Amino acid sequence: MGQRYRGIIFDIDGVLRRGGKPIPGAAETIEYLRGKRFRIVFLSNLSTRSREEYVDKLRSLGFRVDPEDLVLATSATAAYVAKHCRSGKVYLVGHAGLRRELEKAGLTIVEDPEEAEFLVAGSPFDEKGYVTEENRWKFTGAIRAILVAKARFVAVNPDKLFPGSDGKPIPGTGTFLGAIEAATGVSPIIIGKPSTHIYRIALDKLGTQPEETVMVGDQVYTDIAPAKKLGLTTVLVLSGLTSREDLEKMDPGLRATIDHVIDDVTQLPRLLEG
Amino acid sequence: MGQRYRGIIFDIDGVLRRGGKPIPGAAETIEYLRGKRFRIVFLSNLSTRSREEYVDKLRSLGFRVDPEDLVLATSATAAYVAKHCRSGKVYLVGHAGLRRELEKAGLTIVEDPEEAEFLVAGSPFDEKGYVTEENRWKFTGAIRAILVAKARFVAVNPDKLFPGSDGKPIPGTGTFLGAIEAATGVSPIIIGKPSTHIYRIALDKLGTQPEETVMVGDQVYTDIAPAKKLGLTTVLVLSGLTSREDLEKMDPGLRATIDHVIDDVTQLPRLLEG
Repeated sequence: MGQRYRGIIFDIDGVLRRGGKPIPGAAETIEYLRGKRFRIVFLSNLSTRSREEYVDKLRSLGFRVDPEDLVLATSATAAYVAKHCRSGKVYLVGHAGLRRELEKAGLTIVEDPEEAEFLVAGSPFDEKGYVTEENRWKFTGAIRAILVAKARFVAVNPDKLFPGSDGKPIPGTGTFLGAIEAATGVSPIIIGKPSTHIYRIALDKLGTQPEETVMVGDQVYTDIAPAKKLGLTTVLVLSGLTSREDLEKMDPGLRATIDHVIDDVTQLPRLLEG
Repeated sequence: MGQRYRGIIFDIDGVLRRGGKPIPGAAETIEYLRGKRFRIVFLSNLSTRSREEYVDKLRSLGFRVDPEDLVLATSATAAYVAKHCRSGKVYLVGHAGLRRELEKAGLTIVEDPEEAEFLVAGSPFDEKGYVTEENRWKFTGAIRAILVAKARFVAVNPDKLFPGSDGKPIPGTGTFLGAIEAATGVSPIIIGKPSTHIYRIALDKLGTQPEETVMVGDQVYTDIAPAKKLGLTTVLVLSGLTSREDLEKMDPGLRATIDHVIDDVTQLPRLLEG
């Protein structure tokens, strides 16, 4: 099936790494595919870091990767807003990594929500589950951006909960969005998975058409289904959060969005060249 | 109509005071009705103060009032939880006034959400719209109380927005509730208006039956409708947020919950004695 494909989008967690360790053979597989002239990007729903910060993490796992090879929810949001925001004025809720991506995209972060044309919402919570010092007023700021300034409301991802370092839940962007939607009655445009926006941004970066692009992910609802919706070929790996048993119990409509199933990413070259 | 009534519940804002000033003649009317042996309580949806703190505010406006004459969303919530919580262990989100009411009701505020039998939610925001220092971790704590400890979820009121001192919106308890409902999928039992719970607590305090009790309020949806639902006689005053024009445009089902309309509270004695 290989000749028609020119681009590959790799989800990271569960595909290239698992529990902080690389999937054995994954880095070599990437290099092999690059040697075969496939264009490759790595995609993550991360809302807190810039590409410059995240690239070090992947390199430490043995992957050869540059910031330009990454499509994060932060950088995809910055790309989306830069395309649609005329004044360039953005009110920001979230972390320094998101701020850096917005600034790198040429946007201006305003302190006064009433000056904003866009409200960009990431998570106001830190990794221990505290509202960070710089985000303490941001619930109010976000509400005023929407209700007073009529700013357009864009969110990095809809992820409500994460496991904390103690394994218990801590809130993410989606929990903040619940507060703002309750207060204003306005729902955001979501950029990260399972929205298709982040996949459009990834295609823009690859410079490929959907029909010549493959998405490799470990979760059907968040990775596979939106990619399929855009017309990409989808490959599910079983090295992450989805097992064969899960597939058997899955809603048939959702399962139908999967084109191919492989054990892990090392089987991808054979699939593409078979 | 006077002979059948023994108790009166007065809403405060728009009924006894407006814009920080007393309604002319309101204090004298209260005293007159007390002289006629009516039992009286004052009711407010306030989520931040205890009765001891709030009583000073009313006294400074010329009302003769004791903490025991007040039913606040804080004290009503404390009464409700004290009645239903077996272990007495409560995880608290909110202000010091709510904490004082819970402690006064014999409840123990636990720092670890996993020890909680009840989660009691007031507002984590201060009057300028900041998440207060002691509430910075409370989004996480509330989520863990519900998801890990399976605590019952009670909220002081559902009020999403308030006007700040600059006239622009700041978030209240309801905005926090939106976050926690999004994260957990669990909705709270609301105690304050427009819930009927706060009216049941007020009836308990008066020691009167619904059919011998009058509710006087300035808002139909929040004050009048829930009181009518319990079988109280309802009196709308036009000295607050509802005008005659509003009444004409009002949904007929909602308007039907109003038994009597008067200009302001000074006309109440004539109505009750007429």
